[in-house]
Parts: sequence; C-alpha cells; structure tokens
Amino acid sequence: MIIDISTPVTSSMMVYKDRDEKRPTFTKLYQHPLHPIQETELTINLHTGTHVDAPLHIIPDGPPIDEFALSKFYGPAVVIDLTNVIESIRKSDLESITIPPDSIVLLKTRNSMHLGERFDFDFVYLSDEAAAYLVSKQIKTIGIDSLGIERNQSHHPTHRHLLNNGIPIIEGLNLRTISPGAYTFIGFPLSLPGMEASLMRAVLITQ
Amino acid sequence: MIIDISTPVTSSMMVYKDRDEKRPTFTKLYQHPLHPIQETELTINLHTGTHVDAPLHIIPDGPPIDEFALSKFYGPAVVIDLTNVIESIRKSDLESITIPPDSIVLLKTRNSMHLGERFDFDFVYLSDEAAAYLVSKQIKTIGIDSLGIERNQSHHPTHRHLLNNGIPIIEGLNLRTISPGAYTFIGFPLSLPGMEASLMRAVLITQ
Repeated sequence: MIIDISTPVTSSMMVYKDRDEKRPTFTKLYQHPLHPIQETELTINLHTGTHVDAPLHIIPDGPPIDEFALSKFYGPAVVIDLTNVIESIRKSDLESITIPPDSIVLLKTRNSMHLGERFDFDFVYLSDEAAAYLVSKQIKTIGIDSLGIERNQSHHPTHRHLLNNGIPIIEGLNLRTISPGAYTFIGFPLSLPGMEASLMRAVLITQ
Repeated sequence: MIIDISTPVTSSMMVYKDRDEKRPTFTKLYQHPLHPIQETELTINLHTGTHVDAPLHIIPDGPPIDEFALSKFYGPAVVIDLTNVIESIRKSDLESITIPPDSIVLLKTRNSMHLGERFDFDFVYLSDEAAAYLVSKQIKTIGIDSLGIERNQSHHPTHRHLLNNGIPIIEGLNLRTISPGAYTFIGFPLSLPGMEASLMRAVLITQ
C-alpha cells in the first residue's frame, strides 16, 4: 500500500513562522471561453511543505541538492514515535530504538498533531546532541514533521552535523496517521540543479 | 539501480514552443553576508519539464491532479522503442509490442535525442488512433519524451482519449539513454490539490 506523508501545497497552507511572503501563489493563465486549456503558474519558496535541504542551504558554497545520490531518497525507513517529547528530541529519546545503518529515519512528534493549523513557534526539534548521535548510527537520510529540524540553536548545529555528513534533511512531513515501525520510503526531490533545497512528494510503502 | 528520467529544471531549459514566459525563474532571498542562510523562490508553469497532466488541463471542470490514485505513478513499466517514427506514433507502430494490462507505458522517440536544445515544433506525437488503441489495452499511465503528447490535432483527441479514461499523461521525460524493456517506474507528482497538472521527479528502477 502507498501512504502519502506529504503536506498538500495550497495558497492557504501553513508556512514557516506564518510569514505571508512564504505562502505559495497560483496564477491561472489562459482563462478564456474560446481557449479551454487550463494552465497554472506556481510561485513557491523551495522550503515550503515537504522539502529537502542540501548543505548549500546553511553552508556557503556547500553542495547543492543535485549532489545527493538518488539512493538517499529511496529505501528502508523507520518511523520513530517521539510524540511524548515536549521541547527537543535528545539522544536519550533515541537510544532505546534499533536504527540499522543506512536507514531513512523519520521522526514522528507532536508536530504532526496540529499540521494545517497556525505555525507552532514552539515546535519540537532535533537537538544538536541527538543529531550527532544519529550521525554516529550512520543513518542515510532524516525526516521530521515540522518545517524546521531545529530552532533557537545558534549557528544551526543540528543542520551542520547532518549536512556535513551528507545526510539530507527532509522537513514538512505529515506523519499524523503513521504507526511507528518499518517501511520503504520513496521521496525523490524535483530535479533543481544548483539549488539549496527541493520540493518532493514523499510516500511510505508498507512491507 | 535508480535511473533518472527527469528533465532538470533550470532557467535556461527547453520550454514549450521556446516561449520565454514559460521559462522558470529562480529568485535568491536573504543574500546577506551576516545571514548565510540561502533560500530560493521558484516561479514555474506546471507544464514545465517532467510533469503530469490531469483531465482539468483539457476538460473544463474535469478532475484535478489529486483525484488520480497514487498507484498510477508507481509500478511495472515498459519502455517502447519508437525512435524510427518520424511524424506521429500510429496504432501499427504499437501492435507488435506486448503491453500487459495495468502497465505504465513510456514512449521513447527521437524527441529524446535532442532534449536540451531548442524546442522542436515537429516533435513526434501520439496519434488519436494510437491513443485509443492504448486505452483498449487497459494501460495504467502513459509517458512521452516531449513537452506535448500531441500537436496539430484539433480539440486534442489524444489527450481526451487518455484523460477521459483516467490515464495520467506524463510529458517531458528524458529517455535518451534508456534501453527498451521492462522496469519499475516511480514518479509521484507534487501534492497540488485542485491543479490541472503537477511537477514530478521520475525514475526507473532496474529489475
């Protein structure tokens, strides 16, 4: 079975810090009774909804999105239940979980419970030390159900630990209905050479 | 192995009929020495590069992209070699090929040989009668290596045959290096509820 874990992109969707300039806009072209073809133009920040960050997002002159191998976006995944975490995910929240090397790790938090509402400025994030722990577990890719994987950490150490180790950061997942456990993840980003991020449709395949 | 069959999206890519207003634009935000975070805004016509058409593109009040089941975009695919076709793909070009029901059918034509160059106004297209034949074979989804699946057919009968039968039309594939034969196709479109089309990253998995 294919389970959608993406955030629908609409003009009224939740955006980072509720900033209106980050809201996607859709412009209808060719709306004419004698020309029934419908065509739409989309203007969208690459960090909207379900998207992946490349090192260039944070590290000047870092690798862009097209330097990630496509295999980073396809393969065995584990959804970890962290819905009882209030502030930030710590190393101690993860140590009891079996995380095989080369896993795509998806962090399900209470963020998934209020997707579609206003932006939560106190969203649950992945702490610096937990990111370093996941790097030590040799994970392949990480995903989280918020529009940021960290907040209030100066110089973005969580992003740096992950991106400096070649781990793509997928943000904006919707894991609300997903049970913890093993899946196959598929989420190939749009081909945007040279960009610091890309948009994607992410799904889980049940095994 | 994962093989990319998508067209990279860039500001200089080939667009339909070489119309400049159809070229995507990338705007850098927050370029400031004290703010190293890089963020980009993309403006893009939904029919750019590798994308899928929904009935609403052609049929007023037809179903939008989100009414296709996700299973339409994942599964057994057959790449058909039609590189010797000059003008349009006819039923007779397809009859000798085994096409199992529920296949994702990918049409490889001479269009793939000059992708990245100027738009070819004489691109190879799928004729009305060949589309009707593929509908009779109960295919699941169709893809082609041009930015349009038809040209010079009034009232778009190829689009109508396919879309009226619930068959998504994927355009803008790059099949240049792909050998004819059987693969698994993966190409989930961005989640754009209500839209007449969507962008995608399309890949083939070798079996």
